[in-house]
Amino acid sequence: MTEQNRQLKLVARPDGPVKDSDFELTTAPVPTPGDGQVLVRVQYLSLDPAMRGWMADRASYLPPVALGDVMRAIGIGRVVASSDPKIAVGENVRGLFGAQDYALVPASEAHRVDPALAPLPRFLGALGGSGMTAYFGLLDVGAAKEGDTVVVSGAAGSVGTIVGQIAKVKGCRAVGIAGGPEKCRYLTEELGFDAAIDYKHDDVRAALKAHCPKGIDVYFDNVGGELLDLVLGRIARNARVVICGAISQYDNRDDVRGPANYLALLVQRARMEGFIVFDYAARYREATLAIAGWMAEGRVKAHEEVAEGGLQAFVPTFRRLFRGENTGKLVLKID
Amino acid sequence: MTEQNRQLKLVARPDGPVKDSDFELTTAPVPTPGDGQVLVRVQYLSLDPAMRGWMADRASYLPPVALGDVMRAIGIGRVVASSDPKIAVGENVRGLFGAQDYALVPASEAHRVDPALAPLPRFLGALGGSGMTAYFGLLDVGAAKEGDTVVVSGAAGSVGTIVGQIAKVKGCRAVGIAGGPEKCRYLTEELGFDAAIDYKHDDVRAALKAHCPKGIDVYFDNVGGELLDLVLGRIARNARVVICGAISQYDNRDDVRGPANYLALLVQRARMEGFIVFDYAARYREATLAIAGWMAEGRVKAHEEVAEGGLQAFVPTFRRLFRGENTGKLVLKID
Repeated sequence: MTEQNRQLKLVARPDGPVKDSDFELTTAPVPTPGDGQVLVRVQYLSLDPAMRGWMADRASYLPPVALGDVMRAIGIGRVVASSDPKIAVGENVRGLFGAQDYALVPASEAHRVDPALAPLPRFLGALGGSGMTAYFGLLDVGAAKEGDTVVVSGAAGSVGTIVGQIAKVKGCRAVGIAGGPEKCRYLTEELGFDAAIDYKHDDVRAALKAHCPKGIDVYFDNVGGELLDLVLGRIARNARVVICGAISQYDNRDDVRGPANYLALLVQRARMEGFIVFDYAARYREATLAIAGWMAEGRVKAHEEVAEGGLQAFVPTFRRLFRGENTGKLVLKID
Repeated sequence: MTEQNRQLKLVARPDGPVKDSDFELTTAPVPTPGDGQVLVRVQYLSLDPAMRGWMADRASYLPPVALGDVMRAIGIGRVVASSDPKIAVGENVRGLFGAQDYALVPASEAHRVDPALAPLPRFLGALGGSGMTAYFGLLDVGAAKEGDTVVVSGAAGSVGTIVGQIAKVKGCRAVGIAGGPEKCRYLTEELGFDAAIDYKHDDVRAALKAHCPKGIDVYFDNVGGELLDLVLGRIARNARVVICGAISQYDNRDDVRGPANYLALLVQRARMEGFIVFDYAARYREATLAIAGWMAEGRVKAHEEVAEGGLQAFVPTFRRLFRGENTGKLVLKID
């Protein structure tokens, strides 16, 4: 191969929203797999709010991306060279491939996906990390059950759309919070949410009261901030508040707004619990089969936005997440 | 009976710390029990931080005390007249008797205590609400188990002293946070805590690091505020943060400081959960027997401060709780 491997490296810790100067696009020779390794041509990168945390110099559930390293990212790619008998050239795989054209990874970290089952970007969304996050967060951490009122923030996003639809499958009342009338219409008319609240234009407190007359049993929180406080003011007895993310706070992690209404947890004997989807890796198959089954039945719909422009479009595309500009799963096409 | 019944009535919603003008001491005739009722001469009142919440005009787990009503309080008294065959004159009972000399209550709400087992004020402390709160909060909500590191705030108070001692019984490492060297000495030297942190004089962050080298598995929080944030910064994987109270915030409930570090719950897959001890009423006997047994073995020590002055001393005595001036259970002698 004479082609070069373009790599997007993190070169500065972002202060506030990410900017072009936080990254550097460099080239290196395309590597050759050693024993037990495969070389993957990256096709799509998953863009996730959590990546903002990986860029910060802060101990977390994963170490920070070191300055000068290729930006960590989950991707889908095609095996172009293999030194492991278990994976053949031409197979599609998913893994932590990073923001680069070619990834050299141990074969055990390249997980096969079947392009006959769904378009490839879906394996980063409903049939990937977003679906897993929605499934385990709602059903395991949130313990959602029939008759519960489930509220999800970031409802039109990759995780939120699946949360609300799984809630409906399970016989819950699903209420989404999203930004703008178009997203809200999408949630109720296309995805079957019982109600949607437009946090940019609605009186959220009044809308929560109207749409959750018996209180909120499960709050699946992707955004944090003021919405978390408003929801805490409306939780039901024994509610579960699932902390999945806090996208409203990621750009100012040194001055995070804490939930002043947290004493509602005491009054309502409720709990607030965080989780990391990677902990459920042993059960991804269960969740994938369940979601794929609901999709086949037409009960769960998935939507992906595939951004063009390759690695050079990483920064502006990533920023769209924080501006709430995407609906469903946002992926970046690399190949 | 020609004696009058003095009653302390709530006449204003306190703004900040309670003051004398929020209450009015009035007199009324001593009532006579109707069928199924008993008349109780109140002997001791329990003074609890939660009462501050009952004075506020805010929906909570109990309705607010109405303006003009006798201040709600748990007490111990002696039955002086009974119209129920199940309770005899002369028996000692516990119940929601209110801040008054005499309480007329249904016999079913006057719960017998045995003065041969312990001094009466202890039935408001280690063998009463404080003990129940410590037991169920630590073991049920907090799920403390052998080897856990348990941190408790308000550690020298009525609940905190019992939390730390039960933690030791269960094989945990017990670390208390209290105000002042004398309280800290009491915790480690008298009650067997492994360590105590003086939040008024120590660098709490550094002390938590030193005394909780493996992180904090259970935080039993009585105070809220800055300490909650500092502890969240040090929680271990799968930690349980038990929200029992937030005494630092009760005098400014309209401007509560929320835990800005709450995203530690996500990173550490931890939960924060509130509870109300009344929900465990069906299991009070289990907890009382356990604590009484540990006391008999010398493994749990109880301490009560009995304040004199009767109903007229209610306000200044109640304020001592919020100034951290008491060690162990604070009760007000009425009779």
